[in-house]
Amino acid sequence: MSASRLSMPDLRGYARAGLSGDVIAALVVTIMLIPQGMAYAMLAGLPPQAGLYGAILPLLLYAVLGSSPALAVGPVAVVALMTAAAAGTVAEIGTPGYQLAALWIALISGILMLVMGVLRMGFVANFLSHPVISGFITAAGILIAMSQARHMLGIQTTGKTLPEVIPSIIANLADTNLITLALSAAVLVFLFWSRKGMAPLLKRLGLSASGAGLLAKGALFLVVLGSTLVVWGLGLDGQGVRIVGDIPRGLPPLELPAFDLDLIMLLLMPAAMIALVGYVESISIAQTLAARKRQTIDPDRELIALGAANLGAGITAAMPVTGGLSRSIVNFDAGAETRAAGALTALMIGASLLALTPLLYFLPSATLAAIIIVAVVSLLDFRALPRAWAYSKADGAAMAATMAVTLLLGVEQGLMAGVGLSLALHLWRTSRPHVAEVGQVPGTGHFRNINRYEVITTPEVLTLRVDESLYFPNARYLEELVQTRIARQPEIKHLVLMFSAVNEVDASALESLEMLLAKLNASGVKLHLSEVKGPVMDRLRRTDFLDHVDGLYLTQYDAMEALAPELTRDTLARPREERRKPGA
Amino acid sequence: MSASRLSMPDLRGYARAGLSGDVIAALVVTIMLIPQGMAYAMLAGLPPQAGLYGAILPLLLYAVLGSSPALAVGPVAVVALMTAAAAGTVAEIGTPGYQLAALWIALISGILMLVMGVLRMGFVANFLSHPVISGFITAAGILIAMSQARHMLGIQTTGKTLPEVIPSIIANLADTNLITLALSAAVLVFLFWSRKGMAPLLKRLGLSASGAGLLAKGALFLVVLGSTLVVWGLGLDGQGVRIVGDIPRGLPPLELPAFDLDLIMLLLMPAAMIALVGYVESISIAQTLAARKRQTIDPDRELIALGAANLGAGITAAMPVTGGLSRSIVNFDAGAETRAAGALTALMIGASLLALTPLLYFLPSATLAAIIIVAVVSLLDFRALPRAWAYSKADGAAMAATMAVTLLLGVEQGLMAGVGLSLALHLWRTSRPHVAEVGQVPGTGHFRNINRYEVITTPEVLTLRVDESLYFPNARYLEELVQTRIARQPEIKHLVLMFSAVNEVDASALESLEMLLAKLNASGVKLHLSEVKGPVMDRLRRTDFLDHVDGLYLTQYDAMEALAPELTRDTLARPREERRKPGA
Repeated sequence: MSASRLSMPDLRGYARAGLSGDVIAALVVTIMLIPQGMAYAMLAGLPPQAGLYGAILPLLLYAVLGSSPALAVGPVAVVALMTAAAAGTVAEIGTPGYQLAALWIALISGILMLVMGVLRMGFVANFLSHPVISGFITAAGILIAMSQARHMLGIQTTGKTLPEVIPSIIANLADTNLITLALSAAVLVFLFWSRKGMAPLLKRLGLSASGAGLLAKGALFLVVLGSTLVVWGLGLDGQGVRIVGDIPRGLPPLELPAFDLDLIMLLLMPAAMIALVGYVESISIAQTLAARKRQTIDPDRELIALGAANLGAGITAAMPVTGGLSRSIVNFDAGAETRAAGALTALMIGASLLALTPLLYFLPSATLAAIIIVAVVSLLDFRALPRAWAYSKADGAAMAATMAVTLLLGVEQGLMAGVGLSLALHLWRTSRPHVAEVGQVPGTGHFRNINRYEVITTPEVLTLRVDESLYFPNARYLEELVQTRIARQPEIKHLVLMFSAVNEVDASALESLEMLLAKLNASGVKLHLSEVKGPVMDRLRRTDFLDHVDGLYLTQYDAMEALAPELTRDTLARPREERRKPGA
Repeated sequence: MSASRLSMPDLRGYARAGLSGDVIAALVVTIMLIPQGMAYAMLAGLPPQAGLYGAILPLLLYAVLGSSPALAVGPVAVVALMTAAAAGTVAEIGTPGYQLAALWIALISGILMLVMGVLRMGFVANFLSHPVISGFITAAGILIAMSQARHMLGIQTTGKTLPEVIPSIIANLADTNLITLALSAAVLVFLFWSRKGMAPLLKRLGLSASGAGLLAKGALFLVVLGSTLVVWGLGLDGQGVRIVGDIPRGLPPLELPAFDLDLIMLLLMPAAMIALVGYVESISIAQTLAARKRQTIDPDRELIALGAANLGAGITAAMPVTGGLSRSIVNFDAGAETRAAGALTALMIGASLLALTPLLYFLPSATLAAIIIVAVVSLLDFRALPRAWAYSKADGAAMAATMAVTLLLGVEQGLMAGVGLSLALHLWRTSRPHVAEVGQVPGTGHFRNINRYEVITTPEVLTLRVDESLYFPNARYLEELVQTRIARQPEIKHLVLMFSAVNEVDASALESLEMLLAKLNASGVKLHLSEVKGPVMDRLRRTDFLDHVDGLYLTQYDAMEALAPELTRDTLARPREERRKPGA
């Protein structure tokens, strides 16, 4: 069944096969989403309903516009943390200004995603390199877990970065509410156990493997129910255990937040980063799941759908949203066949808001904090850093810088440091391209690096193979290298540049080549080019550079053959098939 | 003779041959440098002696440390303009704070050049692409010429950018001093004529061609002498003609300017740009001249020498310096053989400061303005923009942006816009690499683009040649492209990635390849690699990626040969020499 369009025959097929999978998936995801939505709203510094509202209109809009059948859109931990960091710079947590900032973050990032999608600019997300995003998510996970210490212990803490939060926890440790601590410890232990131990237990109790796996996802429902009952039954809210309290009953309001240009300008940069991180996280999940069914995801369409979902969040008092990893996997495993599963989830959340919110009054914040911690532990990947470092120092350095700056200075700074360093290291690498002096592999038409192979060369001809496109950061590098090389070996009469790996020659490189040509002329050395690619040749033909080049050859062998008569000694060893030609 | 070291035999040879060339060159350059130095000091908003001081210690330091025998270091127009722009942001022109800022600009850019030279970081200058630097210099030339209107007309103007200066000129046009205008027009006409008409005239008067060429450079001396005599003789300074006035007699003071950390931080960015522009201008000239004699220039040593020269300027009340185009060419043509020519120039300027400054009292500012305008006209290159645009839209756009922003917003903004746009366009280009589907050229071992050549393909094997290094900005591009391609053609059983033009695979690209592998596995397609380069292979071997790749082949032909038995039809046309192998 096509993931992107439901035509009439699809709908008939859907009625037969898809519906039951979608209904089961929506039910399981809803059970996860109610506590997770409230927990992530708490993480973002927003009232619990902001998380639940984020699971209604955004999900419906994604279901209409998106391209992934299994992606579960809604509040996610990293975006919640970034929202808190950004909103915290413009207003105090708990104030109307803070909530307004969160809404504008959703609206701005939604608009940016829409614009990027319409302009087909999804590729900009690629500038968040894998080491940067991976280091960022691990560091964000640590910050998130640290930020929940206050709810786990029932204390007050301040600050957003490790150097702020850790001293604040230590200073307030004496205020720990022991009942809160006991409650959160019990929930945490149960949730960690349930991830590994619950499914086997249910299987032993006679459930099928897949049924047991799904029911184990109900662990969240069990801790919400259990801890709510304990707090209510024992009256623990009177003994310092913080609870969720009143959640407005009914569907979210539909209104555009107050327009404030200064606020929007302040939030532009953080909202752009939230849009990028949210998009990268979501598209990775969507593509991984799509690949399992040999489906494809349209990145630009995903941007438009996620943009619309965030606009939907911004006008319904919700928090910013994106596709979340854990719920998407559950959605997929539970058999979600179409995006109808997401729409059904939205309807179930809506029904819960109409009926169930009074039941959540006594839900302790400690339970939500434990849910957050269990969720982010799966984001931590400490082995990624040594792995990246072993693969390439540049990637390792970018990841380490991202992690360190995120933990020490904050999420936005960390992302910017990582992206900036990645680009700087890339430019540094390409600014010193690999240039190999090559010679002929005896008896063949192949030419290889003189340092790696036994090859034939002649002192009068210098052949250099340039292993990089020539553009402004490295334009002068080749010029200087050739000049040094020629000055060292005055016998050189011919320079052949082998352009087989040169995919571009920009205006700076052309200027440099012209300068090189002038220098070679002044030194009495002739310049030849071999194996120039079609697009590069097309561009060079627009100039008069090729008129001044002494020779232009399709292959390096052709170049050497043409030069042979001019050399003092004929050193070209003809390949076997060439020798048969008469007079060659 | 070695350009870089003077050993004893060199000194003997030097005594015989070089001295006369160096002395003549120093004399001609000194005659140019006295008016040019004062003119560029005026352009920088500094007292005239700042330009003359810039031609003493800096020249001696460059002579000791530099590597170019012909480069004439000293005040230059573009650096003077940039100095005025930077110093103008922190203090009013004519105040001690302004002069302090100019000294710190020299010191900071000197230190930055020294550090870059010691760390061998000369390559960062390459990030000023040729179109950017060319557009910048033309735009700076226009701004410089515009800024001299006040001296040419004898009026007051304000502003640094075209939208500021032009209305200011128009508003004050009524105040034009007609005597000043007549004087500057006469000087301007004579100088422009002298560039073309003076040498032929002198030749007709019986001088040798080279002697006439050199003596024509004395035109500057003639206008200085002539206009000074006219102003003095007719008492024009009493009729509103502005004159140079008192220049302190004697050598420059030697003192470190007052330390001011806030000032230094404010000047850091502009000084860095001045260092970059100055270095790029200087190294291009030095290399062009060196090439004519098959000498080489050491870029890092040049940075150190120019850095020391600017430190020398900063501690002798001088203006920032670099290698200048016009005087270097004169120096070279006049026969400068060694860097002693520069040292001799410094001594002659020093002698002039001891003896000649009273004679410059009546020199009119209008003459200096005309000298500046004649000098910058040679910098203007209006044909560069259409040329760059015709060669490549990206280069043309970078140049146009640099010019427009420089003219409209200022020199620093223009440079930053140009560099930023160049990098952004480069990243955009490499983020969408060229990927060609290839097939076998019948009867050969060559594989070529199916859209350009008549080649043999089979529906069960998709071979893609990637024409770019794989790194984070384009990592996911290939993954998405392959996924789309495979989804479109379900017959595909094997994907061969031909890596002949892939010079790097970074961690993001590796992650993307692993993701691609997982998707291909899920879809039942096998992944093969061919023609992987040595350094890329070395890096991939550090991971387990290659263990999961189905096949790894030295050449694309080997890959197709290995796959042939698995295909429904054998479509591989063996190349002639291969056919001879038994059983192939």
